[in-house]
Parts: sequence; C-alpha cells; structure tokens
Amino acid sequence: MNEALPLGAMIGILGGGQLGRMLSVAAARLGFRTHIYEPSANPPAAHVADRLTTASYDDAEALRAFAQSVDVITYEFENIPTAALDLLESLRPIRPNRRALAVSQERIAEKDFLTSLGLTTAPYAAVTTLEDLHTALARIGTPSILKTCRLGYDGKGQARLHSPADAESALAQMDGAPAVLEGFVSFTHEVSVIAARGLDGSVACYDPGENVHRDGILHTTTLPAKLTNAQRTDAVLLAARILNALEYVGVMGVELFVTPQGLLVNEIAPRVHNSGHWTQNGCAVDQFEQHIRAVTGWPLGDGSRFADVVMENLIGDDIARIPALAREKNAALHLYGKSEARPGRKMGHVNRIIGR
Amino acid sequence: MNEALPLGAMIGILGGGQLGRMLSVAAARLGFRTHIYEPSANPPAAHVADRLTTASYDDAEALRAFAQSVDVITYEFENIPTAALDLLESLRPIRPNRRALAVSQERIAEKDFLTSLGLTTAPYAAVTTLEDLHTALARIGTPSILKTCRLGYDGKGQARLHSPADAESALAQMDGAPAVLEGFVSFTHEVSVIAARGLDGSVACYDPGENVHRDGILHTTTLPAKLTNAQRTDAVLLAARILNALEYVGVMGVELFVTPQGLLVNEIAPRVHNSGHWTQNGCAVDQFEQHIRAVTGWPLGDGSRFADVVMENLIGDDIARIPALAREKNAALHLYGKSEARPGRKMGHVNRIIGR
Repeated sequence: MNEALPLGAMIGILGGGQLGRMLSVAAARLGFRTHIYEPSANPPAAHVADRLTTASYDDAEALRAFAQSVDVITYEFENIPTAALDLLESLRPIRPNRRALAVSQERIAEKDFLTSLGLTTAPYAAVTTLEDLHTALARIGTPSILKTCRLGYDGKGQARLHSPADAESALAQMDGAPAVLEGFVSFTHEVSVIAARGLDGSVACYDPGENVHRDGILHTTTLPAKLTNAQRTDAVLLAARILNALEYVGVMGVELFVTPQGLLVNEIAPRVHNSGHWTQNGCAVDQFEQHIRAVTGWPLGDGSRFADVVMENLIGDDIARIPALAREKNAALHLYGKSEARPGRKMGHVNRIIGR
Repeated sequence: MNEALPLGAMIGILGGGQLGRMLSVAAARLGFRTHIYEPSANPPAAHVADRLTTASYDDAEALRAFAQSVDVITYEFENIPTAALDLLESLRPIRPNRRALAVSQERIAEKDFLTSLGLTTAPYAAVTTLEDLHTALARIGTPSILKTCRLGYDGKGQARLHSPADAESALAQMDGAPAVLEGFVSFTHEVSVIAARGLDGSVACYDPGENVHRDGILHTTTLPAKLTNAQRTDAVLLAARILNALEYVGVMGVELFVTPQGLLVNEIAPRVHNSGHWTQNGCAVDQFEQHIRAVTGWPLGDGSRFADVVMENLIGDDIARIPALAREKNAALHLYGKSEARPGRKMGHVNRIIGR
C-alpha cells in the first residue's frame, strides 16, 4: 500500500446522486472523508458526506476549489463535460481515467473499442442523416433500435424501429444528435459483471448477476445468474480484458447478453453500477468500497459471495411499498433520501438475502 | 407505521463518536437525515451526517436550536447532563426514555432496578467512606472491584481489591466520588444480548454474542456464543424483561455472565453497543438500523443471523495492521475516521465473516 492515500484523506466525488451517496458511506467505512460536487440542490449524497459544493460544471472557480480540497477525484456518472474534466485533471488525479470516460460517453467509440479487443457487440452503425439510417437499416434490418451517441440512459433518447417505415419518426426523436443504430440480438438473458481494477493492476470480479429490466429500467438483479461455469469464466475474463486495455482504476459495470453463440457486450459503465447493489448484502466488501479501495490505491477487497441475493429496484411509487418491505424477513432496505418520488425515478432498492 | 416518522425526517443524535457515526449511516439507509450534537471538534459522525452542532451540553441556546431542527432525539452515550436532557425533552421526544438513562447512568440504581425484576447481579454495596468499604468487604470479600457510581467505562474509574489491605488505595482512586463495591463472580464467559424494543412495544433480540475483553476493553465478540439452547432462551427473555419494564424504545446492550448457577446481568447500556457491531455483516438489519427503526416508529427489522461472525476491535496502534487486514479474505473493515490513534482508543473494528 505504498501509493495508498492515508486515512483521513479527502475523496472528491462528481455527482451527488445515490451512487455518490453509497460511495461516500463506503469511503467513511475506510476512514476517508468525501467532498461532493453537484449542481442541483439537496443531493442525496450530501446527507452522508463531509463536504458539499453546489455549483455547475462550468464554474471554473468552484471546480478549482473543489479539486484543491481533495486528494483524488472520482465520479458517479459518465457524462461530465470535457472542459470540467480538463480543469480538474490539471490539479488532481481522476480515477477511473479519461480514456474510460471518453469510451463510455460515446456509443460508437465504445463499440469500436470493444470490437477492437476482439469482443462481440450487437451489429451497429453510425447514423446522422436519414440516408445513413436507411443504409444502416439495409444492413442491420429490423427490429432495431436507434440511440443517441451521447447521454441518455434508462430508456431515454432511444427509439425502436419495427420496420424501415419507422425511420423518419425514430430519427426525429434523436433531435438532430448523432445516433447509432443497433441490431436486436436474440439473447436468452442479460447478466452483468461488476469488475474492479486496482492501482497496482490487479483485477477482481464479483460473481455475475442476472438482470431483468422493466420499462427500460433495471428491475432486479439475481445472484447467482443462470450461467454455465464456462460462461461464468468467459464473462469474468472478458471484463478483465476491458479493464486492462483501458488501464482502468476503479469499479466498472459490464452488461452482457447471453446468447447461444456466446456472450455479447451490451454496454460498459465506468463506475459503480445498479446491477452491483446486491454486493452490499452478499459480500464482505461491496462494490462501493471496492471502488474506493481502487481509487485510493488500497488493495482490492475480497468480493467473494457468501449468500444468494435478489436486488430489486424501488422506482417512483414503489416508495409506497416501504411499510410492507420494512416488515419483510431477510430484506435489507437501502433508500436514497430523495424527497420527491417521480415516475421512473430510482428511490431505493431492497436486497433480499437468501442465506443458509 | 402510523406513528412512524416520514422519509426525510431529521434525527438528532447526541454524541459524535463512532456509534453516532454508524447510527447516522443507518439512518440515511432508511431515508432519514441526521443532526449531530457534539462538544468536541471534528467528530467522526460529522463525516457522514447532514448537520453538525459543535457546542457544549450547557449551551442552552445551541441545545434549543438543535432540538427545534429535529423530529426525535437519540444518543450514543449515556452520560448526558440532566439539565441538557430536561431542556431537550421539553421540545422533542428523547428515545430511549429518561428512565433508561437514569438507571444506566448510576450503577447502584441499575443494580437495584435489575434485582427488583428478579434478575441476578454480582453482589454489590454502596461505598462512600472507608467505613462503608470495610463493611462492604466484610460481606462481599475479595477479590472484588470498586467502581465509581457514575461515568467510567472501558476500565476507567475502577480499582481491584485483592485483600482488605487494598481498601484505602482503592478508595483514593475514586477521587471522592460515590462508589460501588462489586464482588467477583465466578463465570465461565461473558455474552451479550443486543435487544430492541419498538414504539409499538414489540421486542426483538439478536443472537447473543460471546465477548472477550483485553485490558478492560472489549477485544472480540464471537457468533455464535457458547450457550445451550436453554441459556440462549434465558438470555433473550431476560433482556426482554428489562426492556419491557423500562418501556424502552431503541436498542440496548445487555452484558451477561454465564455461570454454573445461571446468567448474571453484568451491566446494561441504553444504546447501540460495541458487542453488537457484528450485526453489520451477519444480519439483513444491523443494530444501528434497528435502533433507528425503533426511535422513528418503524417496525423492528429482521435481525436473524445468516452467517457466523467474529468481530475484533481495533484499538490504538492496531491501526497499523490495516494494510494486512485490508488484504484478508472475508474481513469487513469498519474504520471510524479518527485522526489520532491513542492507546486504548477505539479506532475501528473488523468483522470476519464465516459464511457457507
């Protein structure tokens, strides 16, 4: 632990949502303090953080003061403006690194990177004009899905095409932004690998979880996933290849489609990931602590799983189920402290532990 | 959950040490915010709390503002000045209640209360003068131990007597404070029950843990404890009797001596307890969340144990072992964010999980 940050060091976290919140708690558990940078008021992470800066990502003065107050900078979301990153990086290390961010901020760069590693993705093509889209449709066919290259998650900025006749309306939904057409893949289920790489280059992966989505939002992650031992090994090796290629430091979520032809990479997220929340109640070291260990130069922790777990997201009005969930046996609740329950908003999650 | 505090409610915590810190994290997990009241600077709990008041317990203005900012008041230590409690209680509910505090703040009141319930304690006698002490020694004998009635924990304010000749020096160590002479009990081991009582009067207990002390400070708690099923039942019923008699709301630590003649109550602590830290990695709902559930009027959670755990305290220089502990398999570290490692100071703990 020569390069490790000392106890009491301050970790800067860009983004004050639930991921920043759970990172902050994990950092405290290891004796670190956190400073949250978040443009919006009363962010969930601030309830459990040592310091909060409320400022926009184009406030150079606030960014500078933030960077100078911390020992290392990490983030809970990938769409951080480039200029802000440039300024912050001139003052303090940003982990995971800029390359991981660049690749995951842009869908085509991501897919190009993954295929360059010999990994398989869904067929894809860049689309800016209607002509591009028709050319892409001729190759990829329908059903397919058009997505903006940047931003957009949880079903936002996406349009499904059931036939070439949907082209015009789908493109209109992109609002002029560069997009990517992705072919539908015939997969049996989706799994994700929560992988970590330390400052010393060591890699550790949690047991893959099986994801079920509802309305484009993660609904449940179930451990163990339905995978053969060979698939489990493939999934972990594939994730390690991605992290090593990026000289990544931190936790990454790697979503995979399980198909008869093997595992396809759906997308990667250079951060702790919703599908890794089960680790809070199934492992000695959860994904949040693992991320903090990585970015502070600690050795990666033991992520072996000692219980079966089903994680269920609590979305919007699910918050009304809390009184019942609070009474449920073997259920560990994790609420995010958000004051307003809007449709589609992640309000918390519950980990159901299936122990011995 | 009719009487339950709503999500987002503010919980006031008196005391900003590691217990307040872990209570604060648990409160956040249920969607609550916390306000810490602590006289000393940079308290560990402030790193993970929404608000902090730095003021002494005789600052009426600060106490009033604190109380008015919160929905309920709880505490992490029992030696809170009475005047402060009077003021706070006039503004907001204090849970656990004043009676629990009064009983546990004063050793003779505590023992009188316990024996009034038909429970067994070590033989004891009040001691103020040397004459009292000799009378008490005549009845209780040596070896025995003289303790101040108030304050004092972790071996402070205590003197062992190996023969009546030690009387004068032992009494001198009490520094004029009222004291109690306690007879030594021949016990095989010490266990503790972490018990909780909800606002609705329901009681829940964690599986008892077995404690080993070193230099008067808790060293390890091991689950499961060496107990017969009958002893386990006795321990839990006995704890429930104490909580019900006090109309207690919150988590209490009940330390018991296991003797051939049955279980003796060593002492009770009206708060989350060091010997309950194992619950963080062995239960879906840990003692900190259980306490928050109780004081906010939530239903008590499922405290059933799904793993064997050994909790080890990290005291003073044990902090130097962190690099090795960080690499240990199945070890969950919990550090308290204290900047200075003094001898005897609790710096953190490690829960070793012995899963399936």
